[in-house]
Amino acid sequence: MKKEGVVNPWEVSGDIDYNKLIKEFGTSAISDDIRKRLEKAHPLLRRGIYFSHRDFDKWLTAFDNKKKVSVLTGRGPSEKMHIGHLVPYLVAKSLQEQFNCDVCIPVSDDEKFYVKAGLSMEKAKEYAEDNILDLIALGFKPEKTKIFQDFVYTDIYKYAAMCAKEITYSEAKGIFGLKPENNIGWSFYPAMQAAHILFPQFKNGKHMTVVPVGIDQDPFIRLTRDIAESFNFDKPSALHAKFIPSLSGNSKMSSSDSTNDVIYLTDSPEEVKKKINKYAFSGGKDTLEEHRKLGGNPNIDVSFQYLRIMFEPDDKKLAQIEKDYKSGKLLSGELKSILIEKINAFLKEHQKAREKAKKELEKFILKS
Amino acid sequence: MKKEGVVNPWEVSGDIDYNKLIKEFGTSAISDDIRKRLEKAHPLLRRGIYFSHRDFDKWLTAFDNKKKVSVLTGRGPSEKMHIGHLVPYLVAKSLQEQFNCDVCIPVSDDEKFYVKAGLSMEKAKEYAEDNILDLIALGFKPEKTKIFQDFVYTDIYKYAAMCAKEITYSEAKGIFGLKPENNIGWSFYPAMQAAHILFPQFKNGKHMTVVPVGIDQDPFIRLTRDIAESFNFDKPSALHAKFIPSLSGNSKMSSSDSTNDVIYLTDSPEEVKKKINKYAFSGGKDTLEEHRKLGGNPNIDVSFQYLRIMFEPDDKKLAQIEKDYKSGKLLSGELKSILIEKINAFLKEHQKAREKAKKELEKFILKS
Repeated sequence: MKKEGVVNPWEVSGDIDYNKLIKEFGTSAISDDIRKRLEKAHPLLRRGIYFSHRDFDKWLTAFDNKKKVSVLTGRGPSEKMHIGHLVPYLVAKSLQEQFNCDVCIPVSDDEKFYVKAGLSMEKAKEYAEDNILDLIALGFKPEKTKIFQDFVYTDIYKYAAMCAKEITYSEAKGIFGLKPENNIGWSFYPAMQAAHILFPQFKNGKHMTVVPVGIDQDPFIRLTRDIAESFNFDKPSALHAKFIPSLSGNSKMSSSDSTNDVIYLTDSPEEVKKKINKYAFSGGKDTLEEHRKLGGNPNIDVSFQYLRIMFEPDDKKLAQIEKDYKSGKLLSGELKSILIEKINAFLKEHQKAREKAKKELEKFILKS
Repeated sequence: MKKEGVVNPWEVSGDIDYNKLIKEFGTSAISDDIRKRLEKAHPLLRRGIYFSHRDFDKWLTAFDNKKKVSVLTGRGPSEKMHIGHLVPYLVAKSLQEQFNCDVCIPVSDDEKFYVKAGLSMEKAKEYAEDNILDLIALGFKPEKTKIFQDFVYTDIYKYAAMCAKEITYSEAKGIFGLKPENNIGWSFYPAMQAAHILFPQFKNGKHMTVVPVGIDQDPFIRLTRDIAESFNFDKPSALHAKFIPSLSGNSKMSSSDSTNDVIYLTDSPEEVKKKINKYAFSGGKDTLEEHRKLGGNPNIDVSFQYLRIMFEPDDKKLAQIEKDYKSGKLLSGELKSILIEKINAFLKEHQKAREKAKKELEKFILKS
């Protein structure tokens, strides 16, 4: 039985009808025209994982008109990052490569601190420092990329204050689901988030910024678009992603899932192999005979989805895998092996780059 | 007809029964024992303008036991400061002289910005910069005094965040009278204020801090005392002042009064003379004959009160003036002349010191 999809900033569950979401949220579907302009882009953009946008056409046109454009994508730091967390940064990096534009990544150690009971400020800062290594490891251009933590680059408070003055408690309550028993840091955070989104314009003047986010985060974009005018800024543009399933096929991979349900960027090759073989939801048939005869279903197969989303960028190879899986030629175990190899190759490079990143912090980090 | 007194952080009006306030707020009267320990202190402390306290006896005892003590008194910046604004700083300076202790003065340009509709951040910062000159001009010891603006020393955001996590929106709402239509900077400000009060301990470790404030501000002290334990800090101590009347005799001198009702620190000698002669509420009789016969009432005479509060530190001279005024020997105009001379002498020195302060900023100002 299907459970109707629920999508808001606090809950993502059930079967999600993305076309319905576009209507509900009042966003635009990413058109073929836009997709053509992103031909060289990351599979996430080319293959429809990013499915909706606000004013991204204007962002592209600004670029075509030789105007400044930039990418902004924040990080709410967690103990360690998993592959699902990479989605917006892979897109940011891809846009930076194609358009040679600035990327800014604010890391909200303050939000984590406000929202998570019992988490110390020191711990929140440690999470941020850890995650920043993963972000740098992705290979952003140092001269065009700025990363900052709210508790280190405290000058962000000034910009948050400017945004705060434009947001009433009622508005924040409505959009962020604030409760009276939440602490007042939490109720201030919407201003900090708006300051993050507008930061490229606060720093470099009015220009088009695009923010890749999960569609559930759109209410925050909308709030920031509403207040952008107060500063005579361009309304920030957005690219909205579908949710990346967890290994077991839950709608949205999350740090709160069991550690067996996600693949961490620090997992060893053995852990990856074990997790995928044991937990990755399969679209294959129950028996070998049945599978050979009827074939697997790539649409519900998590391993295939991971290949499609980020681990097999070659469209021809992906098409072949899909065809072979559907026909029954490729078995579930074989499909899993392909993914395991791909992920482990990625993680090997990533983990090396992460070590190197420790020496490159200075180039990326913004301080007050 | 008497109007019953109203005292809370948003309203001070009517006839105020200070003994009743001590009961209502649950504070302690300043005892003779405490007053004896402050024999050399400013008239404001000696003459009962500071009338109530929380744990100030503990502060004095900590000092006697050779433990670190400090004074903290904030400033909500305004376009220009008037003599009523000086009350807590004169006391802070006097305590610094007697006890050779640190003084910290946070200047909340952010609060002013959040609370005052239409006020730009630049303007709020200008107010702060202007007021800081007046504070430095009072003659604090540069090596033991730190002044900072929230929008300049933005590292204060970290401490505010730590306090914010300990304060729910309900609590802040109750104590600060927050409304849903207030902006979320406003609702965050209680955390910033608590961070100010605890700042000496955040910076220098657990010790007794005393905060001289108007009694109407006590709810904020109470809130901060409640959360001090979360950081294993000493509960901040407080000294509570009565209100300084405006020239026309209103309960509390305020920047929102008519400019003719207050004396600014930048007023010229002529302005001072004109304001006092024309607007200072007199306790004298209506006619010369009557006054000579019945005498004046110093208790309701604003000029006499100003002498008592801060402009005639010599107890003998003050007693003589009081006696002569009561007896009818001293006329209202003569009493006003004494005050005019005293204020102008003070302002002449102050305005000189204020000019000098422009070159001394570096010694006092804390930056991130």
